[in-house]
Amino acid sequence: MVTLIEKPTLLLDKTKTVRNIERMVARAAAGGVSFRPHFKTHQSADIGEWFRDRGVTKITASSVDMAAYFAAAGWQDILVAFPVNVRQSKAINKLAHEVELHLVVEAVGTAVTLNNFLGADVHVWLKVDAGSGRTGIHWQDEELLADVAHTVADAPRLKLTGLLTHAGHTYRATSPEQIVAVYDETAVRLNHARDLLHAEGHNLLVSVGDTPACSIVDDFGRVDEIRPGNFVFYDLVQQRLGACLPDDIAVGVACPVVAKHEADHRIILYGGAVHLSRDSMVVNGETIYGRVARLTKEGWGQMLYGSKLVSLSQEHGILKTDPATFESLDVGDVLLVLPVHSCLTVDLYGRYTTLSGEVISKMRTNE
Amino acid sequence: MVTLIEKPTLLLDKTKTVRNIERMVARAAAGGVSFRPHFKTHQSADIGEWFRDRGVTKITASSVDMAAYFAAAGWQDILVAFPVNVRQSKAINKLAHEVELHLVVEAVGTAVTLNNFLGADVHVWLKVDAGSGRTGIHWQDEELLADVAHTVADAPRLKLTGLLTHAGHTYRATSPEQIVAVYDETAVRLNHARDLLHAEGHNLLVSVGDTPACSIVDDFGRVDEIRPGNFVFYDLVQQRLGACLPDDIAVGVACPVVAKHEADHRIILYGGAVHLSRDSMVVNGETIYGRVARLTKEGWGQMLYGSKLVSLSQEHGILKTDPATFESLDVGDVLLVLPVHSCLTVDLYGRYTTLSGEVISKMRTNE
Repeated sequence: MVTLIEKPTLLLDKTKTVRNIERMVARAAAGGVSFRPHFKTHQSADIGEWFRDRGVTKITASSVDMAAYFAAAGWQDILVAFPVNVRQSKAINKLAHEVELHLVVEAVGTAVTLNNFLGADVHVWLKVDAGSGRTGIHWQDEELLADVAHTVADAPRLKLTGLLTHAGHTYRATSPEQIVAVYDETAVRLNHARDLLHAEGHNLLVSVGDTPACSIVDDFGRVDEIRPGNFVFYDLVQQRLGACLPDDIAVGVACPVVAKHEADHRIILYGGAVHLSRDSMVVNGETIYGRVARLTKEGWGQMLYGSKLVSLSQEHGILKTDPATFESLDVGDVLLVLPVHSCLTVDLYGRYTTLSGEVISKMRTNE
Repeated sequence: MVTLIEKPTLLLDKTKTVRNIERMVARAAAGGVSFRPHFKTHQSADIGEWFRDRGVTKITASSVDMAAYFAAAGWQDILVAFPVNVRQSKAINKLAHEVELHLVVEAVGTAVTLNNFLGADVHVWLKVDAGSGRTGIHWQDEELLADVAHTVADAPRLKLTGLLTHAGHTYRATSPEQIVAVYDETAVRLNHARDLLHAEGHNLLVSVGDTPACSIVDDFGRVDEIRPGNFVFYDLVQQRLGACLPDDIAVGVACPVVAKHEADHRIILYGGAVHLSRDSMVVNGETIYGRVARLTKEGWGQMLYGSKLVSLSQEHGILKTDPATFESLDVGDVLLVLPVHSCLTVDLYGRYTTLSGEVISKMRTNE
């Protein structure tokens, strides 16, 4: 593999990826919940097939364009887990004719507009804010929940289907116990809203599921569907949360060493913000942009904990190393950078290369 | 323009872009320095022509791939301002045969390797660290400077041409006076190294030039060439540094409003980290990811200072607004997000759209 690397290259460990997929398929089955994986992390028709081969039939996308990409790849049951963007009425309408389309609504006005421009039926999920504070109807706002539910239920093109949330605040947890607590609280809150709307005549499903919770929780409780996405690759953030082991991280960017500075054991990688994204995490008070491992014949080795990417500019990555690692590396060597946040790193590329050199397809977010 | 926007779209104000180009061309001429603009910000063959039309004949690129893209667009004098990546020997050799190629070297070993694989001559600039601390030979490391200079001078394929630095620490300045001071100090340090090597028989040019300094400094001093890049578009960081006015910012991302939350005047934009990049800046102790303006018939209006992007996830942007702005906006409206760092925002796209709807070409960094 190493000999093929000329410049920053997105490498995919297929074995680890498939293992991550199989593990989550098994977790959902054991938990008795329906599995609608989020495809926003891999954005790949090829990787989608690895899910399909393991019985997955319905998926989540984060944009209408992504849904259209996967519809073209043969997926027939797609949820767009983002508040309906009414300016994409044409593209939404087209999709509604092609697949079983699930959309997310959180306002009366959007429901009305959507119903008016649709020429085919869609499923509608109410977006609920169960504590993350990003968007959605607050779970205690009973009036708004009921208003939007009634509006959707009365709209001929809209089939009121369920309540949906993304408990993104699991990412702020500092222990697995906290992640479980956030999950349980989220389920309680969504079921509170479900019971309320049931009393008003609506029968609703409940859909949750971020990667930290879905990787850790054993009892999914009164939940119908989970939608994790990042688990397909995991990353340093997930490792720190306790959602995966270092060996589960399935993607990285191979980066050549271009310079060395003995005085402070600083190594310059060809690998900057345009190859890794600017996402960072704070470890022991220090901001880091990635960790590194050595490429091996089989893939990559263990994380070199004495080294960390401490700064990125557009094309440069500055790696602080321990003296032994510094001595062992030469200009022209290649290191594998494990990403802080794999979703954003992967998004920068138009394809993956597997450890055997195979090219794996990937959509582009922006034209 | 507004009616054309369906989803996050990279908008380019051509009038402002051309004005920014003309102003920098004039500054270089007035300062008596050669102008080799960095094309890493716009990455566009079309925009390159706007430079060429104003007399620019030599350019800077940040990667071998970018140099190849601009060589294909007819540029014949290209500097790759990044330490030579010896793993790209084939691509470098090809370019060396096609154009007047300038490369950057900071180690004896790299110079030797480079000379060995080249089949055509190249210009070599020594990369000097004049205080930024990123990479390069420290300006006071007289032994290493002399060693690398002699190695390059003795290598048949390498033409020792100059000393080059990027004084990236101007970005950490807190006043225009500090930027001028960093520039002056940088010029003094490079000239110290130049005089030292002159005494050893080498005649060298000096190349500097980041956008903050080149936008502010009037007296360029004993410098032969400047290489700013970001000035073509500028951004919020440059505005805060005093390197541009708000009205000079020439790119932004048009983002639809998809949800509103009255309680805290929070507006959800379809525009997240994959559309804007995760780059941020701290303003009055608060981290922000962008500011917004309204789209108008002619382009976009003044920055809405009461609003700021306070959080980004993959596709969502959370905008905190003042009450009046909140009331004036509806789901389905479009706002223009002015980027914190235009280089990274632009890098996410494969093309620009001008205010008149014209599509402007752009290369992709990663395959």
